[in-house]
Amino acid sequence: MEFKVNSKELEKLLTKLIPGIPPRTPVNILENFLFDISDGVLTVYASDLEMALKSSINVICEGNKQIVVPAKLIYEIVRNLPDDTVNFTINDNGKLTLKTEKGKYNISYINGEDFPEIPTFPAPDTSEEDIHEIVMNGTDLKEALEKTVFAISKEEIRAAMMGVLFDIAKDGIRFVATDGHRLSKYHNKGYETDFVEQYIIPERAISIILKILDERDVKIFLSKTHVEFKLDEMELITRLIGKKYPDYNTVIPIENEFEMKVNTKELLQVIKRMILFSTTGTRRVKFSIESENVEISAEDLELGSSAVENIHCSYKGEPLSIGFNTGYVNDIINHITDQEEITFKFSSPSKAVIIQPVKAKENVDILMLLMPVRLNN
Amino acid sequence: MEFKVNSKELEKLLTKLIPGIPPRTPVNILENFLFDISDGVLTVYASDLEMALKSSINVICEGNKQIVVPAKLIYEIVRNLPDDTVNFTINDNGKLTLKTEKGKYNISYINGEDFPEIPTFPAPDTSEEDIHEIVMNGTDLKEALEKTVFAISKEEIRAAMMGVLFDIAKDGIRFVATDGHRLSKYHNKGYETDFVEQYIIPERAISIILKILDERDVKIFLSKTHVEFKLDEMELITRLIGKKYPDYNTVIPIENEFEMKVNTKELLQVIKRMILFSTTGTRRVKFSIESENVEISAEDLELGSSAVENIHCSYKGEPLSIGFNTGYVNDIINHITDQEEITFKFSSPSKAVIIQPVKAKENVDILMLLMPVRLNN
Repeated sequence: MEFKVNSKELEKLLTKLIPGIPPRTPVNILENFLFDISDGVLTVYASDLEMALKSSINVICEGNKQIVVPAKLIYEIVRNLPDDTVNFTINDNGKLTLKTEKGKYNISYINGEDFPEIPTFPAPDTSEEDIHEIVMNGTDLKEALEKTVFAISKEEIRAAMMGVLFDIAKDGIRFVATDGHRLSKYHNKGYETDFVEQYIIPERAISIILKILDERDVKIFLSKTHVEFKLDEMELITRLIGKKYPDYNTVIPIENEFEMKVNTKELLQVIKRMILFSTTGTRRVKFSIESENVEISAEDLELGSSAVENIHCSYKGEPLSIGFNTGYVNDIINHITDQEEITFKFSSPSKAVIIQPVKAKENVDILMLLMPVRLNN
Repeated sequence: MEFKVNSKELEKLLTKLIPGIPPRTPVNILENFLFDISDGVLTVYASDLEMALKSSINVICEGNKQIVVPAKLIYEIVRNLPDDTVNFTINDNGKLTLKTEKGKYNISYINGEDFPEIPTFPAPDTSEEDIHEIVMNGTDLKEALEKTVFAISKEEIRAAMMGVLFDIAKDGIRFVATDGHRLSKYHNKGYETDFVEQYIIPERAISIILKILDERDVKIFLSKTHVEFKLDEMELITRLIGKKYPDYNTVIPIENEFEMKVNTKELLQVIKRMILFSTTGTRRVKFSIESENVEISAEDLELGSSAVENIHCSYKGEPLSIGFNTGYVNDIINHITDQEEITFKFSSPSKAVIIQPVKAKENVDILMLLMPVRLNN
C-alpha cells in the first residue's frame, strides 16, 4: 500500500515524538516508531512500555496498515529531505520505500503486530467512576513541574519518591517532590476540583511533558493506574507509580520561628562561588547568621581552599550557625530566582529549614524544605 | 607580597589562556597556570611542555614573584566575581588570598620554580639566521587552517602527518594536511617571502590558534624547532613536529581529464542523506556519472537500507562509477561550501580524485584530494 505526506509536516510530527523513544533499552523494538495508517490518518507512536507518546497527521492513502520503523533513521531521513511530497510504499518484502522528486530510499520495516502493547487510557478494566479530568493552563503546569521535578529521588529503593506527586484536593493542586534531603511543594490554589486523590507521575513522563508544554491548555485524564496528558495534537499516556507517597506534611515543621530575608540574586551569586570551594569531602556551605548579616563560608580540605563572604540580611532570631549541602542550596535558590527576596525559616542547626519566596504569584504557594548537614566544629 | 587587578580584566585574560591547559595530563602541575608578577606586569602562562600560551596584564604591585595556581579553580572564581578590584596576597604559608569588597578566598599555590620548563621562542641554541618572520592577516590564516586541519592524520605512526605543513616558498604559502586517504592543500599566493622552508605545526597548536585568531594581523616567528604566533596581547609558542613531511606533490595526479561540475549545496544535501545509509560496513557512497547526471547511491547491508538520488551535473569524460568513504566526501565538501560550484577531476575508479571549487578567492588555490574506495560489484 501507499501513502503520501509532506516532508516538513512529517518532520514536525516526528520531532515531537522522538523524545518518547527510550535512550537505552534492552528491548530493541522500542527503538522504533509504530506507524498506524488508517482511514487517511497516520498515527505515530513511541513507547517504552511504561509510557507512550502519540500524535497524528492526515495523509493521502488507500487501505489500512501498521508497520514498525527504525525511529532515528526515519527521523533523520525525513529531517534531511527538502520540502516535498514524500511517497511512501509499504512493500510486501519488508521494505518501506520513500520516493521524492529526485531520490528513492529503502528502509526495512517490521509488521505492526510485533510491536509490544502500548499503554492506553483508560487502561482495560478501569472503572468509569475512577476516571477524573482536569484542564490546566500549560504555563501553570510547566511552572509547577519545573519547580518540583529537581527534588525527585534518584534512588530505586525509594520507588514512591521517583516521581512528582499530584496531590489533588478541593483547595487546589499540590505538586510535591522529595528525595528525603530536600522537598519542594508547589500549591496552585487556582484549580478547584470536585475530587480528592493522589497520583505519582514518573520522572521520565514529567521530563517529556515539560518539553511539550506551552501556553495552551492541557487536559489531564487520571485513573488509579494511568494518566493521560492531552494537547491539541498530541497525547502522552503513562503508567503511574503504584505506591503510597509518604505523608509529606508530617516532615514540614510548623514552629520555625527564626526568620531570615535575603536578596535572591545576591545569595545565588555567593552560592555559585561557594560551590567552587566545596567540590570534595562534605561539599558543605555554612551560614552564620546575625541580625543584619549572614556570613557564608566553605572550606575544601582536600584542595586546601576556603571562602568567606558576607551579605546583608534581615534576621529575627537567635544567632545561628547552620550547614547545608552546597549543591542542594543552589538547586533550591535556582528554582525561586523569579522572586526578588527569599525567606529562610529556622528552628535549630539540626532541624529542617523552610525556604520560600517572600512574595509568591497570586494563587500560588511555594515551599522548599532542606535538611541541614552537621557542622563538625 | 600583594597585587591588585580588576576582576573582569583578569577574567578576559584567563579566558584566553584556559584552552592552553591540557585537558588530560599525567603531569598534574600542568593543570595550573604560572603567574609571573614582575615590575607591575602579571604574565600568565599555560603549558603542556610542547606548547605554551602566554598573555600579560598591568597590575598594581610591589615586588616580583612567580607562583603556580590551579587553573580551573582560579578561572572559575574570577569568572564568578562581581566587577570589582581584587586584592591578591601571596602568603608565605602557601596560600593565595583573594579579597573583594565582600568576600575573601584562600587557595593553595606552589612556588614558581616547581613549574616545568616552558617552551620559549627562540629556543636556546637557535641560530639567528634560522629565524624567519611572516606577518599574516588573521582572517587569511584562519581560513587556511580551517580548510586543512580536518585532514590531519590521527595515527601516531604517521607522526609527520599529525600537523599542518606550512610550506613556504617565493610564490606564497601552501598549507597542507593529509592522512593518506585525503589531502587538503590551501595555497595563498598573496604572501611573498624571501625564504624557502617547511614547518609542521602540531594539531593542538592549530586548534588553539584557531580559537584566538580574528581579523587582526598575526606575526609568525619560525625557527627549525619552534614557532611563535604573536597577536597584540597574546603569544602561542609551540615545538614543531621534527619530521620530514612526505612529498605531497607526487601524490597529486596531473592527468585527471574527466571533469564533473556540480552545485555545492545540492551535493552536500545529498551526501548528508547518504551518510544515513552508510553507517555500517564499508560506509561507502557510489557516484555513477554520465554527461548530465550523477546518480549517487548508498547501501547499508547491515540495516537493510538503501538510497539513490540523481542530481544534475555537467560532465566531460567517459561514463564512470566510483566509490568514496561517505564521511570523507562530506568533510571535503563541507570545507568548500563557500563556492557555488565544485569540480571533481577523475581519471579512473581506482585513482585519486581532485576536488576543487570552480572559482576560488583571489590569490587562493584550493585543492582537495580523495582516494576512492573499491566498488565490489
